[in-house]
Amino acid sequence: MKTNVSIVGATGYTGLELVKILHTHPQFNLTYIANSEGDTTIDALHPCLTNVISMDVQKADPKDIAEVSELCFLALPHKTSMSFAKELIALGVKVVDLSADYRLELETYEKHYCPHEDKENLPNAVYGLPEFYESEIKKANLVANPGCYPTATLLALLPFVEFIDESSNVFIDAKSGVSGAGKKLSETTHFVTINDNIFAYNPFKHRHMPEIIEKAKLLKNKELKVSFVPHLIAATRGMLVSVYTTIDENIDAKAILKDFYEKSEFVRIKETPVDIKSTAGTNFCDIFVEQNGDALFINSSIDNLLRGASSQAVVNANLMCGLEAGTGINKIAYVP
Amino acid sequence: MKTNVSIVGATGYTGLELVKILHTHPQFNLTYIANSEGDTTIDALHPCLTNVISMDVQKADPKDIAEVSELCFLALPHKTSMSFAKELIALGVKVVDLSADYRLELETYEKHYCPHEDKENLPNAVYGLPEFYESEIKKANLVANPGCYPTATLLALLPFVEFIDESSNVFIDAKSGVSGAGKKLSETTHFVTINDNIFAYNPFKHRHMPEIIEKAKLLKNKELKVSFVPHLIAATRGMLVSVYTTIDENIDAKAILKDFYEKSEFVRIKETPVDIKSTAGTNFCDIFVEQNGDALFINSSIDNLLRGASSQAVVNANLMCGLEAGTGINKIAYVP
Amino acid sequence: MKTNVSIVGATGYTGLELVKILHTHPQFNLTYIANSEGDTTIDALHPCLTNVISMDVQKADPKDIAEVSELCFLALPHKTSMSFAKELIALGVKVVDLSADYRLELETYEKHYCPHEDKENLPNAVYGLPEFYESEIKKANLVANPGCYPTATLLALLPFVEFIDESSNVFIDAKSGVSGAGKKLSETTHFVTINDNIFAYNPFKHRHMPEIIEKAKLLKNKELKVSFVPHLIAATRGMLVSVYTTIDENIDAKAILKDFYEKSEFVRIKETPVDIKSTAGTNFCDIFVEQNGDALFINSSIDNLLRGASSQAVVNANLMCGLEAGTGINKIAYVP
Amino acid sequence: MKTNVSIVGATGYTGLELVKILHTHPQFNLTYIANSEGDTTIDALHPCLTNVISMDVQKADPKDIAEVSELCFLALPHKTSMSFAKELIALGVKVVDLSADYRLELETYEKHYCPHEDKENLPNAVYGLPEFYESEIKKANLVANPGCYPTATLLALLPFVEFIDESSNVFIDAKSGVSGAGKKLSETTHFVTINDNIFAYNPFKHRHMPEIIEKAKLLKNKELKVSFVPHLIAATRGMLVSVYTTIDENIDAKAILKDFYEKSEFVRIKETPVDIKSTAGTNFCDIFVEQNGDALFINSSIDNLLRGASSQAVVNANLMCGLEAGTGINKIAYVP
Repeated sequence: MKTNVSIVGATGYTGLELVKILHTHPQFNLTYIANSEGDTTIDALHPCLTNVISMDVQKADPKDIAEVSELCFLALPHKTSMSFAKELIALGVKVVDLSADYRLELETYEKHYCPHEDKENLPNAVYGLPEFYESEIKKANLVANPGCYPTATLLALLPFVEFIDESSNVFIDAKSGVSGAGKKLSETTHFVTINDNIFAYNPFKHRHMPEIIEKAKLLKNKELKVSFVPHLIAATRGMLVSVYTTIDENIDAKAILKDFYEKSEFVRIKETPVDIKSTAGTNFCDIFVEQNGDALFINSSIDNLLRGASSQAVVNANLMCGLEAGTGINKIAYVP
Repeated sequence: MKTNVSIVGATGYTGLELVKILHTHPQFNLTYIANSEGDTTIDALHPCLTNVISMDVQKADPKDIAEVSELCFLALPHKTSMSFAKELIALGVKVVDLSADYRLELETYEKHYCPHEDKENLPNAVYGLPEFYESEIKKANLVANPGCYPTATLLALLPFVEFIDESSNVFIDAKSGVSGAGKKLSETTHFVTINDNIFAYNPFKHRHMPEIIEKAKLLKNKELKVSFVPHLIAATRGMLVSVYTTIDENIDAKAILKDFYEKSEFVRIKETPVDIKSTAGTNFCDIFVEQNGDALFINSSIDNLLRGASSQAVVNANLMCGLEAGTGINKIAYVP
Repeated sequence: MKTNVSIVGATGYTGLELVKILHTHPQFNLTYIANSEGDTTIDALHPCLTNVISMDVQKADPKDIAEVSELCFLALPHKTSMSFAKELIALGVKVVDLSADYRLELETYEKHYCPHEDKENLPNAVYGLPEFYESEIKKANLVANPGCYPTATLLALLPFVEFIDESSNVFIDAKSGVSGAGKKLSETTHFVTINDNIFAYNPFKHRHMPEIIEKAKLLKNKELKVSFVPHLIAATRGMLVSVYTTIDENIDAKAILKDFYEKSEFVRIKETPVDIKSTAGTNFCDIFVEQNGDALFINSSIDNLLRGASSQAVVNANLMCGLEAGTGINKIAYVP
Repeated sequence: MKTNVSIVGATGYTGLELVKILHTHPQFNLTYIANSEGDTTIDALHPCLTNVISMDVQKADPKDIAEVSELCFLALPHKTSMSFAKELIALGVKVVDLSADYRLELETYEKHYCPHEDKENLPNAVYGLPEFYESEIKKANLVANPGCYPTATLLALLPFVEFIDESSNVFIDAKSGVSGAGKKLSETTHFVTINDNIFAYNPFKHRHMPEIIEKAKLLKNKELKVSFVPHLIAATRGMLVSVYTTIDENIDAKAILKDFYEKSEFVRIKETPVDIKSTAGTNFCDIFVEQNGDALFINSSIDNLLRGASSQAVVNANLMCGLEAGTGINKIAYVP
């Protein structure tokens, strides 16, 4: 029997991706879609779904959700998300939260975002990076889906943390497709700003930096000195992360990486530098590594909207519901 | 029980798309993949398939094909294709040919391509435009898959042929993504040539023009004066066709179009001009029409590699094997 | 001695292009730049001008303009423009207006825009298409700079008007870079909307259609049946226009075109279809023509911001001030 | 009186850019253009120059060059270049060599390229980075124009070398437009490979890495541990370089940078991260710097074909001929 699931936040790109995955998912039954206003249909919001999916979009209401679904995906802005999550958990609905609200420990969250309004559930939230938290996710009622930059960065970085000296800088040069900036209109997302261009933004100041540092510390018990510089590139989707750091030069980085992910269904170790097209449309994270003495270059690629958001959310939901991690998850890239 | 199928011509973009569709097709079992040289694997040819599909790629041999499959997709250049098709038909294998070799009547073919080397099978080949030849396709052993430009053009044009005077010009301004030019290296497909650019090529001289004229005549018994101008645009995939012609101004073009495709699963009639992103990744053809007195603008969009080649080929194969037309065919576009 | 000139409307793309041209113009001295708010500098508005040009940007005031300049470029929205033009003309300042306000005859203007507020000067405004109105421009105090679509269309179409039957449809399929939509934020100009995409907008309804019809009638005394369909393409700048119509099949279109523009400095007749990169950055209009019996395809390319706006405006100003048309006008394209 | 100059290697992108600059240069007179085959014209090679520049293109011959010019630009592949340079120097012609042939010390060159065939002139060649070698360039007969990656990297890095410990890694993440790969056809430059994509190539192995190391050592007497990772991005022109390294955390990086380039006409220090559009079409190098404790991020942008090749070559020629560095050099970017 299929599990009934719901989505709150269907207007944005990650909401659309959730709808697309859940529509063909063999074990989930999408029973409810909502956004903040309701009174529309999903194909009116996303005309590409015309003649494919036509469901009403409701004004989000936790009680309605609890009546029709066992698990709910929240694709909402931070702060809005925790108010819904809190009620849904109280009503016995499992939650996969795609916002930042449950990703960080209290102190880190309040420093970088705002006062937290659900301190009760926060300690029980599991960070939804399945390669590292699979067993916890399986038992969780509340999973905090990682940010796109932390997903690509942590998957590249974590296998090597033990070989990095705490005094060394870890530099992350990350490039994201424009969909990462959302549908919101801004000078930054104007076609003319992006076309034929590339630029960094918020260097050393992006809110995904503390997420990376905190998770590396929790998982590897090491306080890394992370310097994070995100860029926008002239692509709709995709994310390329380059980690540069200094390591013990006697390690065999390629062997370490291969061993580390030997059993990981959704991580592919590549012999040549990765590109973003090969992961676009999939839940894969491709990783490549190169050493030069004590200099290390780790290079990872994901689809920012899928592995960096919606498909990873569904993998988490699969695990929370006792399914195989890869159930209903596409592996075939948008190539060419 | 699943039907065993094979692909000859796995190196190019349409071969890749066939592999991608057949890999997840619920009723077809892909047993054999070949190209002209063999001795490789499909994920070596197309690294995006790493950890997804790993099958050997053979040097194409009709007898081997006949042993392991009931139906074969030929994604080969014209001329090469007919030599394979001939042998496969003789061996009892059904064929969906993606080349031009069986699309045209003998005289038209030889005028625009080369001497035909399979005059025996040519008259039995069915033109694989399912909206118009469904019943013939169901009974066919050999289906000639239409070209991408004719697919988008004919689906736009055919509903209106009876309202066009034979003395009127039918102008087709067609724009194709660069994948339509194939993987072959040429100055035309160099990034620098295409980026920030748009240009026509072979105006009034493209070989898809006679295909359009011939099919319109066969289906509607009218000799249209078609003038066809293809363009390359800065996109990987997608095709937008604009048909401009003069009609009886008393018709209601929107109503005619809606009625015509009322029961068509893969044609969507739109209220606003179509775009190529909404069909990218799918087998849909989106169509929009606008009148201005006796001036008519019909506007259609397809994915050139899918509806213009590989997904249409699988729809044809579905019909040839007694399956529902849409079996295994994706409807969810690459949006955003 | 140089002529002092001014610009009102420095915030947008065409304002920027005017500044760029006038900054290096050998005979014009840019003395005054304004927008609607003032209190800034041109390099603050357009950071690409840092260390190149630093002039104050004023809050636009006609009297100030009249004190410091003999000619003023208005790069303003329609309606706003005519109120400035009126005052400037009264103060003895020559005006090149880049808006629509003086392009059309009264009736046409009021039908497609709004009530006209400067009926006194409207009849004296000269349409600034130098290939057709050079002698009038030389004597004018007020030049209405043509729209980008009409510029590219009229230059393609006008040589052939006498060979087109009035009952024939003239179809115009026009493709514009996104800068044509201006800096304004809208879903249409969001990178994600445009990237990998192409689509028509306002088919048969764009306000440049009546401009094309009216000018063809005034110049050639023939009422053409023009059907105009503009598109947005994934390029920042550039415009490709394809005119499709039916002509007397005995004409030699290539010869007619060459003869027509034999002495035109800024029109190049090409032997192959034109592209937009070859005119980007210049004032050129490239034109190609092809016949197929009585079917005619005329294909023109301009830089929408230059020949379609700012460089054409400076050519007009040159003529109004007794200079050679090409003074200070760049001919070297942004290639590669 | 103008100085006569010549170009050998007019077929490629840098040759085209040289022609474009020299055509409007107020003090140089372009008298001779050659490539390896001759027998054509420059506008036949580069159709964008039609009706702009029409000069014969000769088969390159040093004696002819010496007869008609005092200075010659060599835009040739390495190895080919030194054979011409040698002869031209012997004939008394000044040379600006855009290849790698005179950029490196003998040992470095032979390790990374091939045996050197002009050991006589090599020691006298001056490295053409004007911010650092201006006085030497003024006296030189042979200038080795820097590579594009070293130009952008050295301008970013050199102000900080003294604050970097020799044990620290210097990581360079560089992104180049596709024109940097030249006109040669390859799978890498196919539109489909680049569109919607980004990827590194030759990480830690690019031949510009030793050039960067050697120049830093020569100029600053410090052997840096440089790790260089170049990328291709979906843009025609432009280069963004990000340098990541560890410094003395007590320095004020922004102040150092501003002081360092206070008098540099073609370096602009920015308050926000740089982008490539703002330098496209110009000889500027824009630089931004950000500190985070002892972590340093230096971010530079150039036009790879201009500051990274042809406009820097003309600046060098200006200096060699006693002209102002900026004579004939464009400062106005291709924005929007």
